[in-house]
Amino acid sequence: MSNQLDGKKVAILATNGFEEIELTNPREELNKAGAETHLVAPDSGPIKSWDDGNWGDNFDVDKTLDEVSASDYDSLLLPGGVMNPDQLRMNSDAIQFVRDFFSDGKPVSAICHGPQLLIEADVLQGRELTSYPSIKTDLKNAGARWVDNEVVVDQGLTTSRSPEDLPAFNDKMIEEIREGVHNEQMTA
Amino acid sequence: MSNQLDGKKVAILATNGFEEIELTNPREELNKAGAETHLVAPDSGPIKSWDDGNWGDNFDVDKTLDEVSASDYDSLLLPGGVMNPDQLRMNSDAIQFVRDFFSDGKPVSAICHGPQLLIEADVLQGRELTSYPSIKTDLKNAGARWVDNEVVVDQGLTTSRSPEDLPAFNDKMIEEIREGVHNEQMTA
Repeated sequence: MSNQLDGKKVAILATNGFEEIELTNPREELNKAGAETHLVAPDSGPIKSWDDGNWGDNFDVDKTLDEVSASDYDSLLLPGGVMNPDQLRMNSDAIQFVRDFFSDGKPVSAICHGPQLLIEADVLQGRELTSYPSIKTDLKNAGARWVDNEVVVDQGLTTSRSPEDLPAFNDKMIEEIREGVHNEQMTA
Repeated sequence: MSNQLDGKKVAILATNGFEEIELTNPREELNKAGAETHLVAPDSGPIKSWDDGNWGDNFDVDKTLDEVSASDYDSLLLPGGVMNPDQLRMNSDAIQFVRDFFSDGKPVSAICHGPQLLIEADVLQGRELTSYPSIKTDLKNAGARWVDNEVVVDQGLTTSRSPEDLPAFNDKMIEEIREGVHNEQMTA
């Protein structure tokens, strides 16, 4: 199963304050499975992680948002962290980038506070998902059905609650990317 | 005008990660106007501020949530910070405390991310407010009318966007507390 994502390209969208393990751990599993991964951010230069309750390390950005489009990738991964999606959701290019993956039916994975970007992209009507529990009400108000599971898969949309869920999250994320386009991934 | 809040008691609800100036500056103005202020938090012992993009100082908690009720106070102030309301909104005692101020028609002030607690308390249907712009969509999805002003006053509910708005926020907050109970402050 080690080459099941050969030839697949996955964008990881993040900015300062992303929860470090929610980016590095899924990225490592994607790379092991044969995928090519790009860290995409609004600006060039490194971005700083959040790790164990404090600012963490710097991470190199591979591509800026203005250099990429959803058509360049097979899938999108959205790490969490309290500050990261809070900033990204105010960036209209970031939101359009997220929305285009849904328009194209491509698999999207989001963990912790990552689903805040899906609220802003307005792609949650009738979708089943989970998240860090603090944003449950916001997701329900955006039209989603929120459930409390370690991982929830709904037609190409894979979500988890927190770093403890990463093993289950990674398995399902990889399975959905291997399956490819899901026509039920869509904008409202 | 220096004693216009004589005899008034104001609760300031916060936990770790509150934006320091959004607590200290309104508190100073409330105290100058003659009000007694209590920092209320889920647990005893100091809480740590967020200041200029990093963890800041420790602040002594005056009362824990289990020691107080809304009936002890004339008004409630909710400072922001990305992490503070994100944690408080998962605490059912905190949400009930917030909701009780609305049930009693008492003035409530919230700035930056503070209004996230109003989403959780389910008191926003048809109310006009502002906030830090990242949570605009969540507030609209919760039934509020979101406007982009330095301060918005809607029948006892005073809101602002960020620290830059503090002078306008403080003026209106004090005016609403002086006026007292607003019957239009209510739960849905």
